[in-house]
Amino acid sequence: RINSERLWGSLMEMAEIGPGVAGGNNRQTLTDEDSEGRHLFQKWCEAAGCTMGLDQMGNMFATRAGTDPDALPVYVGSHLDTQPTGGKYDGVLGVLSGLELLRTLNDLDIKTRHPIVVTNWTNEEGTRYAPAMLSSGVFAGLHTQDWAYARTDAEGKTFGDELQRIGWRGEEEVGQRKMHAFFELHIEQGPILEAEGKEIGVVTHGQGLSWTQITITGKDAHTGSTPMPMRKNAGLAMARVLEKVDEIALSHVPHAVGAAGHIDVYPNSRNVIPGKVVFTVDLRSPDLDVITDMETRLRTEAQAIVDAMGLEIEFEKVGGFDPVTFDEGCVSAVRTAAERLGYSHMNLISGAGHDACWINRVAPTAMIMCPCVDGLSHNEAEEISPEWAAAGTDVLLHAVLETAEV
Amino acid sequence: RINSERLWGSLMEMAEIGPGVAGGNNRQTLTDEDSEGRHLFQKWCEAAGCTMGLDQMGNMFATRAGTDPDALPVYVGSHLDTQPTGGKYDGVLGVLSGLELLRTLNDLDIKTRHPIVVTNWTNEEGTRYAPAMLSSGVFAGLHTQDWAYARTDAEGKTFGDELQRIGWRGEEEVGQRKMHAFFELHIEQGPILEAEGKEIGVVTHGQGLSWTQITITGKDAHTGSTPMPMRKNAGLAMARVLEKVDEIALSHVPHAVGAAGHIDVYPNSRNVIPGKVVFTVDLRSPDLDVITDMETRLRTEAQAIVDAMGLEIEFEKVGGFDPVTFDEGCVSAVRTAAERLGYSHMNLISGAGHDACWINRVAPTAMIMCPCVDGLSHNEAEEISPEWAAAGTDVLLHAVLETAEV
Ligand SMILES: NC(=O)NCCC(=O)O
Ligand SMILES: NC(=O)NCCC(=O)O
Repeated sequence: RINSERLWGSLMEMAEIGPGVAGGNNRQTLTDEDSEGRHLFQKWCEAAGCTMGLDQMGNMFATRAGTDPDALPVYVGSHLDTQPTGGKYDGVLGVLSGLELLRTLNDLDIKTRHPIVVTNWTNEEGTRYAPAMLSSGVFAGLHTQDWAYARTDAEGKTFGDELQRIGWRGEEEVGQRKMHAFFELHIEQGPILEAEGKEIGVVTHGQGLSWTQITITGKDAHTGSTPMPMRKNAGLAMARVLEKVDEIALSHVPHAVGAAGHIDVYPNSRNVIPGKVVFTVDLRSPDLDVITDMETRLRTEAQAIVDAMGLEIEFEKVGGFDPVTFDEGCVSAVRTAAERLGYSHMNLISGAGHDACWINRVAPTAMIMCPCVDGLSHNEAEEISPEWAAAGTDVLLHAVLETAEV
Repeated sequence: RINSERLWGSLMEMAEIGPGVAGGNNRQTLTDEDSEGRHLFQKWCEAAGCTMGLDQMGNMFATRAGTDPDALPVYVGSHLDTQPTGGKYDGVLGVLSGLELLRTLNDLDIKTRHPIVVTNWTNEEGTRYAPAMLSSGVFAGLHTQDWAYARTDAEGKTFGDELQRIGWRGEEEVGQRKMHAFFELHIEQGPILEAEGKEIGVVTHGQGLSWTQITITGKDAHTGSTPMPMRKNAGLAMARVLEKVDEIALSHVPHAVGAAGHIDVYPNSRNVIPGKVVFTVDLRSPDLDVITDMETRLRTEAQAIVDAMGLEIEFEKVGGFDPVTFDEGCVSAVRTAAERLGYSHMNLISGAGHDACWINRVAPTAMIMCPCVDGLSHNEAEEISPEWAAAGTDVLLHAVLETAEV
């Protein structure tokens, strides 16, 4: 079993970097805080005897050698970047549990045939740069590196420039590494495990996602002196689309969710009728047909709304992935580990997207989940217990040991 | 008659300060650009032989002496600050037409019994600091200066600090000046004059306004892994309130308007269900009972919406003024001037709020309006013709001459 106190201590130490405003973290990708977090992780890995690799997307790879020079490494990991008002565990647990696993193997002087690599994938959250899971996506060949480098944040700064600026652009070509398997431990970010009283989620599938960025163009005009019939109120049109998003998702419940988290209104002045709104609709389902149906309905209904109001609309797909089925062998290694260790467990579908969803396309992959309080995530109040973290990391350790062969 | 070319040249020169992104202006109050515009105005006034007064709210007063030391001055003016994506004439015409009036009197060597003062009122627009017409409001005794100084912008900077920073906080006590009369020339910012083919609007009344800032608090949560029934989506609640605002205003059309121009969503991340929204609802009518009714319905309906969704709501009145009836004598001076000069004219109710609405409480006041293309204002594409500007300024000149006594 892993050292629960040491794991918790590392989680808390990492959480000191990029503190939020309400007890959580704001360590968004490619900020100075992201860089500081990376340095701490690298220091810890080197102290654990690992060599650190760094690719051109800033993905970090800490390697613990295996005994067989021909055996492909078993990879574990997740991400150290956070939401602007994020929690201390989302992603971080998946990286630091990998580190704890290596430290435990060192303590016990256990050698594995396959090397073990702990990764930190760049920009998983997708807040500063859409889409989410950007760098694991380039690694798995879903996006080109040039396209990723050209992504811009709200201030127009590109991903490539910011990666260079914080000093974490490596030399290694992205995606050249071959993996024997990949395991990602992550907090559930939903309420099911806690409600069912289970310690471990054996993740068999992942929901698919569609992000549609919508721009509605009306006409800036004075809120006082413009008669109601002359208005082209883009904010009102958006309100109507938001209501539809809810309707569309509810029509597929419990097999779908939908909301808009990103909303920008221009010029955002109390006495100017909004002439432009830009917002992103997030639609998800474990069923690809449902996603397709929701996407189509969103576009049709939104078009009808703006047509009726005499406004213009543009749709851009800024992120998306299909539902995922994880590797049977890896999933079964997770389940076996949980059983051997005596942890209660159940099968789960991941509601969120994860780096593992992309890596699953290029390597046998599975995920382990642990509960989080009230299912709350993407919130500074995100909380887990040290016991939950330890149980997840124990399962990770045993699944990896089985796969990497002692 | 005034010198139309000189007036237009000054308007164009002022518009070079704080250029917008689409041909208009971004010269928001208490920015460096605001300061630069003030310096230019002061230079022009001094060149026209005026002395410049400056009060503790940054209100500027350029005085041309009269012949009778006991006669109270006739004031004219408006504001030089603009919306973030504002036009070149909103406010600016009212200040620079005052300057043109003085230049014309100088050219013709006309002396008046009453002094004439051209004013630039600070923060008329209310975008950076709510409420609008802040400094004429302090002048007229509606707000205390301490309260005004403590207003904060979106970055938390106070009005008082920013006024000091740009170097335009004067020594003069606010509101001590007594006025014989006040005239404000302004573009209509609505479509009526153009539609009716009239050159001059004789403004008899002003609409009243109510600004309610609404904060809805839900719960930040993951857009993917949070089941629909568990969500507390503040963005969706706002959408429902925005639809109600439209419904409420429409129920009183043509005697009311309503919209929300200011909308901020937190944490504004694509994959976070909005846990908080802050937006400002702008409701207006020439009829105080209608405003009161709309305000009450807004609060009742919004409360019902959030109650049904299990969210929290807070209302704060961040701006408001009652409908205004301008001074009969001043209004008649405007009408007489238009008639004498042969300009077509009609009575108007101002749809927007103006500094004149506050000054009307402490001095006999009237407004003159000139048409603007398509009734468009609070838009960088705001446009007027040099002929319209000249007609308005001619009427201002003659109304002032009648009132200030040659
Ligand atoms: N786990 C997680 O929050 N990933 C970000 C991508 C998503 O929104 O699902
Ligand atoms: N004229 C003008 O736009 N004033 C700002 C106050 C208002 O919104 O009416």
